[in-house]
Amino acid sequence: MSTKRIQVALAGASGYTGMETLRYLQYHPVFEVVRVYGNQSAGNTLDSIYPAYAGVYDMTILPLDDIALENADAVILALPHGRSAAAVYKLLQAGYKGKIIDIGSDFRLKTSEDYLNWYNLKHPHPELLDRFSYGLPEFNRFALRGSDYVANPGCFATAIQLGLLPLAINALTSTVHITGITGSSGSGASASPTTHFSTRTSNLKAYKVFRHQHLGEVGQQLGILAEKNVSVAFTPVSGPFVRGIWMTLSGELNQTCDLSEIFESVYYNAPMVRLRSELPELKTVAGSAFADIGWQQDADNFTIGVAIDNMGKGAAGQMIQNLNLMFDLPEETGLLHSGNIL
Amino acid sequence: MSTKRIQVALAGASGYTGMETLRYLQYHPVFEVVRVYGNQSAGNTLDSIYPAYAGVYDMTILPLDDIALENADAVILALPHGRSAAAVYKLLQAGYKGKIIDIGSDFRLKTSEDYLNWYNLKHPHPELLDRFSYGLPEFNRFALRGSDYVANPGCFATAIQLGLLPLAINALTSTVHITGITGSSGSGASASPTTHFSTRTSNLKAYKVFRHQHLGEVGQQLGILAEKNVSVAFTPVSGPFVRGIWMTLSGELNQTCDLSEIFESVYYNAPMVRLRSELPELKTVAGSAFADIGWQQDADNFTIGVAIDNMGKGAAGQMIQNLNLMFDLPEETGLLHSGNIL
Amino acid sequence: MSTKRIQVALAGASGYTGMETLRYLQYHPVFEVVRVYGNQSAGNTLDSIYPAYAGVYDMTILPLDDIALENADAVILALPHGRSAAAVYKLLQAGYKGKIIDIGSDFRLKTSEDYLNWYNLKHPHPELLDRFSYGLPEFNRFALRGSDYVANPGCFATAIQLGLLPLAINALTSTVHITGITGSSGSGASASPTTHFSTRTSNLKAYKVFRHQHLGEVGQQLGILAEKNVSVAFTPVSGPFVRGIWMTLSGELNQTCDLSEIFESVYYNAPMVRLRSELPELKTVAGSAFADIGWQQDADNFTIGVAIDNMGKGAAGQMIQNLNLMFDLPEETGLLHSGNIL
Amino acid sequence: MSTKRIQVALAGASGYTGMETLRYLQYHPVFEVVRVYGNQSAGNTLDSIYPAYAGVYDMTILPLDDIALENADAVILALPHGRSAAAVYKLLQAGYKGKIIDIGSDFRLKTSEDYLNWYNLKHPHPELLDRFSYGLPEFNRFALRGSDYVANPGCFATAIQLGLLPLAINALTSTVHITGITGSSGSGASASPTTHFSTRTSNLKAYKVFRHQHLGEVGQQLGILAEKNVSVAFTPVSGPFVRGIWMTLSGELNQTCDLSEIFESVYYNAPMVRLRSELPELKTVAGSAFADIGWQQDADNFTIGVAIDNMGKGAAGQMIQNLNLMFDLPEETGLLHSGNIL
Repeated sequence: MSTKRIQVALAGASGYTGMETLRYLQYHPVFEVVRVYGNQSAGNTLDSIYPAYAGVYDMTILPLDDIALENADAVILALPHGRSAAAVYKLLQAGYKGKIIDIGSDFRLKTSEDYLNWYNLKHPHPELLDRFSYGLPEFNRFALRGSDYVANPGCFATAIQLGLLPLAINALTSTVHITGITGSSGSGASASPTTHFSTRTSNLKAYKVFRHQHLGEVGQQLGILAEKNVSVAFTPVSGPFVRGIWMTLSGELNQTCDLSEIFESVYYNAPMVRLRSELPELKTVAGSAFADIGWQQDADNFTIGVAIDNMGKGAAGQMIQNLNLMFDLPEETGLLHSGNIL
Repeated sequence: MSTKRIQVALAGASGYTGMETLRYLQYHPVFEVVRVYGNQSAGNTLDSIYPAYAGVYDMTILPLDDIALENADAVILALPHGRSAAAVYKLLQAGYKGKIIDIGSDFRLKTSEDYLNWYNLKHPHPELLDRFSYGLPEFNRFALRGSDYVANPGCFATAIQLGLLPLAINALTSTVHITGITGSSGSGASASPTTHFSTRTSNLKAYKVFRHQHLGEVGQQLGILAEKNVSVAFTPVSGPFVRGIWMTLSGELNQTCDLSEIFESVYYNAPMVRLRSELPELKTVAGSAFADIGWQQDADNFTIGVAIDNMGKGAAGQMIQNLNLMFDLPEETGLLHSGNIL
Repeated sequence: MSTKRIQVALAGASGYTGMETLRYLQYHPVFEVVRVYGNQSAGNTLDSIYPAYAGVYDMTILPLDDIALENADAVILALPHGRSAAAVYKLLQAGYKGKIIDIGSDFRLKTSEDYLNWYNLKHPHPELLDRFSYGLPEFNRFALRGSDYVANPGCFATAIQLGLLPLAINALTSTVHITGITGSSGSGASASPTTHFSTRTSNLKAYKVFRHQHLGEVGQQLGILAEKNVSVAFTPVSGPFVRGIWMTLSGELNQTCDLSEIFESVYYNAPMVRLRSELPELKTVAGSAFADIGWQQDADNFTIGVAIDNMGKGAAGQMIQNLNLMFDLPEETGLLHSGNIL
Repeated sequence: MSTKRIQVALAGASGYTGMETLRYLQYHPVFEVVRVYGNQSAGNTLDSIYPAYAGVYDMTILPLDDIALENADAVILALPHGRSAAAVYKLLQAGYKGKIIDIGSDFRLKTSEDYLNWYNLKHPHPELLDRFSYGLPEFNRFALRGSDYVANPGCFATAIQLGLLPLAINALTSTVHITGITGSSGSGASASPTTHFSTRTSNLKAYKVFRHQHLGEVGQQLGILAEKNVSVAFTPVSGPFVRGIWMTLSGELNQTCDLSEIFESVYYNAPMVRLRSELPELKTVAGSAFADIGWQQDADNFTIGVAIDNMGKGAAGQMIQNLNLMFDLPEETGLLHSGNIL
C-alpha cells in the first residue's frame, strides 16, 4: 500500500483502553503511532508497562503535560473521567490543528447538566461539548465522515444501542429489559474489590441496577433517533471473564413484525456488525472490533442477544472505526480481523 | 445425637448429582448411606470414580440391576431420563416398602403427554406418575411432609419458580423475561462440545431459547398455583463456571406494590431461602443448599435476581430438604452450611 | 454425641483464614465458636462480611482490643504478621488460661534472628517464641498432643515438607528442585496487582524465586529432622485458580530405593495424608484438609507431586487437626470430608 | 507493499492448529490463503466452523482427497498423526512442485523406529522421512532457509529445547528437571475427559510423567547438538487455561557460569525469542509467536522459565516463522505482534 501513513499520538498509554488501542494499531495499514503520553507511567518504555509489547513497540512514554506540543494528524485520548476535557482544552489553547478522538466519557453527553447528573462531576469545559460528534458509526456515519472531534461511546452504551435502536427507531416496543454481563477489563487496570480474582472467579454480581451511567448516552440517543420514548430497564452484571459484554434485550413487540427484516435493513452496509442466525456467543467477538447480534421471537416476545468486546467495539476497536471515518477511509480499515479465537 | 440413623441407598453413584448427594450426606446427622448402585461404574469403589472421596467413603458400587433387592428406609435416584421410572417400577414390583425420591425428571410432570412433549420420550411407566409429589418445599411443604414418593424439581425450574411464583400467585405481572446462566456441571459428567474447556472458558452462549424443557414443570405449577397464566420468556445460557445458576427475572408490575412485602410474606419460615437487600451474588450460594433472592424496582419495572447452586438447591441439596420432610425432620436438617466460600 | 462442646474464640474474622476457620467449624462435632474478634470489621455481623454465612452464623464481630477478656477453652489467631504476637502477649498478660493456636507466621521460627531475616520485621515478643510447638502433626504429633501453644505452619512450608521430609530424613537425596503453584486465596482478601482478575486469569507467574519466606520454616525443620542438609531450590508460582497448592519436587536419589516404601512407612497412621498411585490432582483436595501425595521414579530421577488446599491443610484445616491434638481428640475429628468436588 | 503475494493452501481447516494458522495469516503481508481442505468439515464455509471468521474468511472447505490437485506455492499440513504422511505422499505422487510444511508429528523423527517407539504407530511412508528438515529456527536457521520440506516441532519440544539447548550444547549441566504446564488447546478440538470444563477448571493434573512423546524429538536434537547426553526428567501438566505452555527447567550447573551470557549469545539475532530479566509470565506470550525466556541462579542451582503459546511458537506461529525462512523472507515477517494482552 503506497498510502502515506497518518500519524497519531496516544494519551493514556498504561490504561487498558490505551493498551488495546496500541494492539489495534499493530495491524492498521494507515495509522502510525508516533508518540504516547502518560501520567504516572511517563519515562517508562511501553514494554516495561506491558511486557507483551517487547519486540513490538519500543517507545518511551512522554509526560502527559507535554501534550500541548503535539502536532500529529490525530490525538487519541484514553484518559479517566474529566481528564480528557482538560487535555482537549490544552491542545486547542496551544493551537493544535489535528483531529481528536476521546475514548473516555467527557464528550458523550451534550449538556453539562447531564454530565453532572450521570457522572456526579461538574464538567470542566462545557463550552467544548458541542464540538464533538457521538461516534456510533452505525447510526451516525455521515456526521462522522471527515469530522474533527469525536466522542467514542461507552461499552455498555454501544451494546445497548446496537440491540435497541433498530426497534426503538421503528417504534416496535415500549419497554426493554436488559441484562448485560461485562468482563473485568471494564473496571480498568487498578486493583479493586470488584476485580479481585478470588471473588470474581466463578461469580456473577449485579451492580448499579437501573442506574448505570451509560444510560445517559442511551437516553440522549433515544431522544434524537426515536420518536416515542422507550423505557429501558438495565441490569449490569460483573462476569467471570476478562473481555467482552454479552447482553440480552427482552420485551414485547407492540406490532407484529419480523425482526430479521428490521435488523437486516438497519445494518445493511455495516461492516462491523455481523447478524447471526441465533443469539451470538461471547467468545466469537473477544479480541475483535465486531459486534455480533442475533434474536429470537416467540409470538410477541423477543430476546435480542448482543456480543461485543468491551475493549473492541466497546472502546479501542470502535475508536479506530471512527478514526477511519474521520480520515475518510473505509470504516472497516484494519479491523476485519478475528481476535484470539480460543 | 441419639437419633437412630435412617438408612438410605443411592442409585447413580458416578454422575454429578449422585456425587453431590454423597457430599451432602457427609454432613447429615440422621441419614446414613448404606449402599450405592451404578451402571458402568459397578464394581469400582467410590473413591476410584471420585478420588476426593478417598478417606471419606470406601463403598464399592453395586450393579444397578440389583436395586430390586434394596430394603433401605429410602432410595435416592440420580439417574438419566427414563432410567428412574424403570428403577421405581422394579423396586415396587419387588415389594420395596421404603420411600423413594427421584432427582431426575421422570416424575416431575403429571401426564405422559407433557413428558413426551418436553422430553421427546414416551414415558415408560405413566401409571406411576400420580404417586409422586412435586418437591418444591417452599410451595408444597405440607404435601411433602411424610410423603413416600417425591420428584425433585429441575434446577432451572427451581430458580424460575422461586423468583416467579410470589408474583404469579398474587397476579402481579403478566409477562416475565428471564435470563438464566448455568454452570457446566448442569451438563453432566460426559464430555461434550458444550462443556469443552477451550470453548466454554470466557464464553457465554444461549441455548434452547424459549423452549427449555424445564418450562414444562414451570407451566404445570403456574396452572396449579396461579389464577391467571403468566407468560414466561426464558433464555437459558451456558456460563464460564462450574457450579450455579444466576438468573434475572424482569417485567412490569400491573399494580403498585412493594416486592419486599410480597417476598417476605411468601418466604416467611422458609429456612433454605435467604432474602437479600440487593440482587444476590452467585458465589454466595455455590456449594450450599440455599437459594438467595433479591430484587429492585423502578416505578413499575422490576428485576428479581435468584442465585442457587444447580447441584445444591437445584438438585442434591433440595433432595435432602425433601427427604427431611418425607421423614418428618426439620427441612433444614444437615443443610445450614455454606459451601466453599472462595 | 454427648461430648461436652469445647468453646473456641476466633481473632481475625474477616480475613480468608478466619473465614475458612469458620467454614471448618460448621462441621466440627466438638468445637463451638463462641466469639469472633476483628479489627476493621468489628461491629459488623459475620454475614455482612461473608454473605454466604447468612443463616449459618449470626454473631457480631467484637473489637480485637477486647481479646484480653477472652476466657474460651481455646483462642484461634488468624491475624497478619506481627499482630498475633501482640495478641498472645495481651492474652497472657490478662491471665488467659486456655490454649492458643496461631495460624499466622509469628511463632513458626524459633529465633527472632530468623524472624527478622525472613519477614524483615523485628519480632515484638521474642520471649514467647519457645513456648510454641510447630504444628505439622505428621512429623510432630507427640509434642502436639495436649500442647497449649501451637504455631500452624505456612501453606507452602506444609506442602514442601510433606513431600521433602520423607526423603530428607532418610538422606536419600541432596538437592530438590521444587515448582509450587498457588491459588489467589494465598494472597489474602485485599485487592492487589497480583490478584487482579484481568491479569491473573489464564496466567502463570513466578515470584520470590529461591527466596520465599516459608523456606525459613523448611530449613529449621530440616535442621531438626535431617542429619545432613538438603539443598532446596524453590520456585513459587501464582496460578489461575483460587484454592490450592500443587507442587512438583524433583531430583536424583543418591541410593536405589523404592519411594513407595518410604512414603508408606512415613505416613502410616497419618489420616490426613492420602498416598496416591500417581501424581495427585489439585481439584481432589480443594476445600478439604487432606494432603495428597504421589510420585514417579525413572532410574534415579524422581518427581514427587503434592497437592493441598492452601486454606485447608495449608491453614485452617491443619489448624483444626492441631487443635484436635491439643485437646487430645483424634486428629482427624471433623476433617474427614471432601470439599466441593467440582 | 508491492511484493507479489505467495499463495498457500491449508489442509486441516477445522482443528485448532488449522484455525490458528488462519489467524496468523490474517496479518501476514506476503502469504495469501487460496484454498483450505478438510475431512469432515469439507463443504462447509470456514465461518460456519469458526463463527469468529465471519467477515474475515469466506472460503468453502474443500475435500481433503482433492489435495493432490493442489498447486499453490506452499501447502501447510495441520492434520492428525499419520495423516500428514499420507497427504505428502499423495502430493508428491501427483507431481506437486511447491513447498510443504507439516505442523503435525509425522516428519519430526528421523527414523521409523523412533516413530513407532514414541507414537506407537508404524510410519506409513518412512522413505519420506529424510526429506524433511526439523523446523526449530533458533538452532537450525541455515538449513531451513530456502528449504522445501519442513517438519514443525511439537509444542512441548519447542519449549524444552529453547530452555535446555543453550545449557546442553555448552555441556553446563547433566540432569534437567522440567515441569511444564499446558493449556487445554493442546488437546485439540474434540471433547474428552481431560478437557471437560467441570474437571479442568481450577485444577492441575500431571500426565505421561517421564514419557511424553515429545521427548523423542528432544532426545534426537540432543544427540545432534550436544556432545554429551543430558538426562531430561519431564513432568507434563494440564493447566486451567486455554493457551500456552509455561515451564520451569531446574538443575545444577556443573561449572560456574553466568546464564545471562549463555542465553544472550545463543539468542543473539533470534527475533522471536525475548530474553527477560526474570522468569516470564504466561500471559505475555498468549496469542503471539514469541518465546519468552528468563532464569534465576543461586550458587549452582538454576531455574529457567520458558513461556510460549502452544499454538503460537508451539505450532502455527513457528510454522509461519519456518515458512518465512523457506521463502527467504525475514523469519519474523508478519509475526512481530502481541496477542490479546488481556
